Amino acid sequence: MEQHGNLSVVLYAKNDLRLENRPIPEPGPKEVLLKIDSCGICGSDVHYWQNGRIGDFVVKKPMILGHEAAGTIFRVGSGVQHLKPGDRVAIEPGIPREIDEHCRTGRYNLSPTIFFSATPPDDGNLCQYNTHDASYCYKLPESVSFEEGALIEPLSVAIHACRRGGVTIGSKVFILGAGPIGLVNLLVSKSMGASQIVICDLSLKRLEKAKQMGASFTIAVEQNMTPQELGQKVKQILGGAMPDISIECTGAELCVQGGVYATKSGGVLVLVGLGQPSVNIPLFDLLVREVDIRGVFRYCNTWPVAIDMLASKRIDVKPLITHRFPLEEALKAFETTQKGVGIKIMLKCDPDN
Amino acid sequence: MEQHGNLSVVLYAKNDLRLENRPIPEPGPKEVLLKIDSCGICGSDVHYWQNGRIGDFVVKKPMILGHEAAGTIFRVGSGVQHLKPGDRVAIEPGIPREIDEHCRTGRYNLSPTIFFSATPPDDGNLCQYNTHDASYCYKLPESVSFEEGALIEPLSVAIHACRRGGVTIGSKVFILGAGPIGLVNLLVSKSMGASQIVICDLSLKRLEKAKQMGASFTIAVEQNMTPQELGQKVKQILGGAMPDISIECTGAELCVQGGVYATKSGGVLVLVGLGQPSVNIPLFDLLVREVDIRGVFRYCNTWPVAIDMLASKRIDVKPLITHRFPLEEALKAFETTQKGVGIKIMLKCDPDN
Amino acid sequence: MEQHGNLSVVLYAKNDLRLENRPIPEPGPKEVLLKIDSCGICGSDVHYWQNGRIGDFVVKKPMILGHEAAGTIFRVGSGVQHLKPGDRVAIEPGIPREIDEHCRTGRYNLSPTIFFSATPPDDGNLCQYNTHDASYCYKLPESVSFEEGALIEPLSVAIHACRRGGVTIGSKVFILGAGPIGLVNLLVSKSMGASQIVICDLSLKRLEKAKQMGASFTIAVEQNMTPQELGQKVKQILGGAMPDISIECTGAELCVQGGVYATKSGGVLVLVGLGQPSVNIPLFDLLVREVDIRGVFRYCNTWPVAIDMLASKRIDVKPLITHRFPLEEALKAFETTQKGVGIKIMLKCDPDN
Amino acid sequence: MEQHGNLSVVLYAKNDLRLENRPIPEPGPKEVLLKIDSCGICGSDVHYWQNGRIGDFVVKKPMILGHEAAGTIFRVGSGVQHLKPGDRVAIEPGIPREIDEHCRTGRYNLSPTIFFSATPPDDGNLCQYNTHDASYCYKLPESVSFEEGALIEPLSVAIHACRRGGVTIGSKVFILGAGPIGLVNLLVSKSMGASQIVICDLSLKRLEKAKQMGASFTIAVEQNMTPQELGQKVKQILGGAMPDISIECTGAELCVQGGVYATKSGGVLVLVGLGQPSVNIPLFDLLVREVDIRGVFRYCNTWPVAIDMLASKRIDVKPLITHRFPLEEALKAFETTQKGVGIKIMLKCDPDN
Repeated sequence: MEQHGNLSVVLYAKNDLRLENRPIPEPGPKEVLLKIDSCGICGSDVHYWQNGRIGDFVVKKPMILGHEAAGTIFRVGSGVQHLKPGDRVAIEPGIPREIDEHCRTGRYNLSPTIFFSATPPDDGNLCQYNTHDASYCYKLPESVSFEEGALIEPLSVAIHACRRGGVTIGSKVFILGAGPIGLVNLLVSKSMGASQIVICDLSLKRLEKAKQMGASFTIAVEQNMTPQELGQKVKQILGGAMPDISIECTGAELCVQGGVYATKSGGVLVLVGLGQPSVNIPLFDLLVREVDIRGVFRYCNTWPVAIDMLASKRIDVKPLITHRFPLEEALKAFETTQKGVGIKIMLKCDPDN
Repeated sequence: MEQHGNLSVVLYAKNDLRLENRPIPEPGPKEVLLKIDSCGICGSDVHYWQNGRIGDFVVKKPMILGHEAAGTIFRVGSGVQHLKPGDRVAIEPGIPREIDEHCRTGRYNLSPTIFFSATPPDDGNLCQYNTHDASYCYKLPESVSFEEGALIEPLSVAIHACRRGGVTIGSKVFILGAGPIGLVNLLVSKSMGASQIVICDLSLKRLEKAKQMGASFTIAVEQNMTPQELGQKVKQILGGAMPDISIECTGAELCVQGGVYATKSGGVLVLVGLGQPSVNIPLFDLLVREVDIRGVFRYCNTWPVAIDMLASKRIDVKPLITHRFPLEEALKAFETTQKGVGIKIMLKCDPDN
Repeated sequence: MEQHGNLSVVLYAKNDLRLENRPIPEPGPKEVLLKIDSCGICGSDVHYWQNGRIGDFVVKKPMILGHEAAGTIFRVGSGVQHLKPGDRVAIEPGIPREIDEHCRTGRYNLSPTIFFSATPPDDGNLCQYNTHDASYCYKLPESVSFEEGALIEPLSVAIHACRRGGVTIGSKVFILGAGPIGLVNLLVSKSMGASQIVICDLSLKRLEKAKQMGASFTIAVEQNMTPQELGQKVKQILGGAMPDISIECTGAELCVQGGVYATKSGGVLVLVGLGQPSVNIPLFDLLVREVDIRGVFRYCNTWPVAIDMLASKRIDVKPLITHRFPLEEALKAFETTQKGVGIKIMLKCDPDN
Repeated sequence: MEQHGNLSVVLYAKNDLRLENRPIPEPGPKEVLLKIDSCGICGSDVHYWQNGRIGDFVVKKPMILGHEAAGTIFRVGSGVQHLKPGDRVAIEPGIPREIDEHCRTGRYNLSPTIFFSATPPDDGNLCQYNTHDASYCYKLPESVSFEEGALIEPLSVAIHACRRGGVTIGSKVFILGAGPIGLVNLLVSKSMGASQIVICDLSLKRLEKAKQMGASFTIAVEQNMTPQELGQKVKQILGGAMPDISIECTGAELCVQGGVYATKSGGVLVLVGLGQPSVNIPLFDLLVREVDIRGVFRYCNTWPVAIDMLASKRIDVKPLITHRFPLEEALKAFETTQKGVGIKIMLKCDPDN
């Protein structure tokens, strides 16, 4: 296999992103070697590039970025039975290293020793060839494209968020933020039976996109809005009703607080967006109205479900992709993402496909 | 108001169904007087007519039938504030008489002293004018028709069944029976995120309808099929997967048993259809695979949700209606229903509307 | 009945608490007239007295205090059937005024129009005679004393908190605050199967009490402790394990934050104590470890359960009572409560019993 | 290690139980070699001995019996880190072979390919030395004896059953059967907050034991009792209340049916006992009262909890043991178990301890 190159997007340190050729790795007995086809750029990829860290996760040595990927099985390890070369798969980036209490109780995303693609020090998938635990590669039916397969990762965040929020038939949902994560939450909420979805953002362009993708109402957040005003605005738009579930996807203090005020008594505020380490919360209002707060860290048990939803055409993620670049232009793609133009930027890693 | 007649469909006893003029009742302080517009015929209406009883509920004195109704507020009692004459409303037929433990914990359908339209001895809504507790009349937006409003009742059975079954994003659902209740379960399952829905019935015509209304797969049940074969058939159709939730809408022993065998380990079998008082269940299989059984008796907390779903066009119940009759032809409508032709037969009670 | 007086503890305004004779009220058709036997003093009673308000609840006209009461039925309204004069009852202070969505779904404590004894403007039970909705008076078996009956109110807060937190067999529970509410949470946690309970407080005396009442471990909080240190301390005491559920009963910022850091990934922080309107929360830590926050506002569906637990001797609340005063010395009792000496101060309203 | 024998209780076929010396196995890299100290005899061990099968599980080749065991680590595999020779451990007999959907969602007991000690063809622990996956061996604190450690297995069945049933504070619980499984359900129910526990059995002696171990009420089942009468009896004993949860531990048709009739509307009937493959269930009553049925197959996530409960003295399992035999007298122990005298028969496998 020495004839193949393995072009990879490697973050050496804050602001030091390089495109370089890496050796093609060998799959272990329970692993597969993947030829990556498509990989999206996540906000966290950009954040590592710009800051060298997210919270306690610090880039200390060169790391391949990217964890929204799909590709083709190129070779399988000796113990792999359910996959074979040529199979098209989507890749779940989190792989538990030990079957601890969290794994045994069905919440493996909380396992502290989990491997996670492109979270330091674990390498990601923005490259041409990569190995991965075969059990965390899921076969894609013909009707689901590689790009859709790559988008299962952000879709999974929304599935996990909407599950934790308890979105169900007739739910009124308020989504704070109309970026990629806000928009997948919109898609997933709708598919789970939400009857009315309000979404807010600073950007009119993003709200326009949200409207096209099925939002019932949009709110343009203004600079000097108070969180109480945001809450009131939602209630007014819903004709006096309040959302059962609010899903915060920005991390901004205004939105976290507005999410508390907006949510109905006995409802749930789901926190997805990571912002300041510490945020002021109107606890009195939250307490006397029993508005629950539930955080969302990645996801678990979402890939099979997401594939079923894409294959049955119940969810259409394709409108999320606004820009495409070949892997060779990865740096340009990162710069585009950072500028905040578009929604999802997709990299094509396999030029032959 | 003496000038108005109040034509009513009254069941005197088994096989003794009469169309007669009844006095127009006066609403109590917390009640409304309704001019009924549309009322569907339910299987239980026909069952009372044919048998004079359902289990322990026995028709002992003349009773107005019908509990799937919508109409217009004609007059309001002295204490009613949220409704006024002219408001269009859908009617929830079950009204708790006391706030007992079941009511306080959110399951008021289980309250043993509940009033329920057209369950003996309580009168129903197949008439021109009727009174009802104002709190159990729900305003319909302009975009929801009276017929849709009347169909909220069967839709509610499905909402309750799918909630109890835990239908959610990516659920594989198996529905046993493609009559009106099977079909509303199909609509509701789909709206709650089911990715694949298998439905079975003896009637090819009903399966055809189910296919049109969104079923992923249909199974024509054959006379001599065993329940194990039915379960196997479902698994085969789903490519080796088993349903997370099965919803039994026939009451037939074959279907109850087939539902157990079909459902995946750790899944749920929801029982909606009432058949024999006692049924043989394959308990060993149920137990070692932890397939839960959950019964469904009517519904609770469904009208507001159903109205939201109809108003937002998330669910379309209109294809359920296959026959329409004026109230004057109620007996013919009952005969038609009994023959099992069509799906839902709707009576028009208000000729002026 | 004119021969009876009705000595009552009336709050006129901030710092203006008076003992005065009030007329004995007449019960409505669904009400009972109660001869109050015992009534505890709650922190909120003292807070209204000292501040004239709690959040948006403001004392605008004279209000009888007290909502932890038990007594004897003196007379029943015309429509009351399940109670008769002479019955000994415990009083649930919250009575929904309308059967709104919250009531119908089993969370009537969230109904915004609820009547609540001693929350302005509704009168409480610190008096000799009072009327109450008969449905919210619960018969006490002989084996449960009036004082125990009065303590069902704070016990209910703990039942609701521990239910919301999901305390169950083997739970490790961390309780922040060893005042009356912390201690009832200790009792209830233990009765629900908690295997280890850690409790913290500033007061060594209170911790001593907690130890006597069954705490596995106590932590004396020091003035300059950081919330991270508090969290670490709990982990260390539990031999490296972290609590599944933390129950915050102080409202202090240190404790709210310490509760987040202490709780295990995937665990629950229950907020019971009301402190500052707004509190800084370490959201990053909460989010990446999916620690849920659930507020507690009063309670619902607790009286029957509490009576069963007291009658079956599964919970012993008697050690909570440290001081007793006759109703005539109510002001002295309030001063004693405010000083923070003791745990629960009980007033004896019926000198004849 | 050749100097050691490894006396083992081996079932060759129906009615062919032998005590023989087996080689001492070598632990794999992630395994430990255990010196078994104590092992209880389970009803299923006797059932295999008497019938050669349970349902589809058939003894086709010689199998060591026993799956209620505790012992000492004798040697550890190369990859084992959290255990060392000399550690005292309790053994969880079920070890998932692949991390399938059931494992990932926290219900690994449902994994169809699971290894399970003493379920054919997997060997059990009724021997002197055995290997086991290190992750499924749990350290016992000094305060928990080997016999208590062995009893964690039946205790786990009850923990799983009471969790599935939702036993919580104030639950009224009806347990059908006062054998070992009925009695551990009694212990666990009580520890989870049940306020009243009714237990029934044919044997007065067993009911006496149940009374001693904390049952509130006992019912002696009579030969010709109908299931309706059994249900009525429970209601009468509870003063008109009905159990929230019934736990069926016999497998007898009368008890399954009686469990349905006894359970309150909206309650849960947990099925633990395995009896006939198919049982007649009063579905009409179950449906209109929404009594849920939940099967129990073994358990998951119970060992750590059980150890905590034993170590904190919240549950005392010691009274369950009525007979003890040395391993050499295993056949006599099996005969004693089969006669139904006593509750739990314990075998001592390590004569030196």
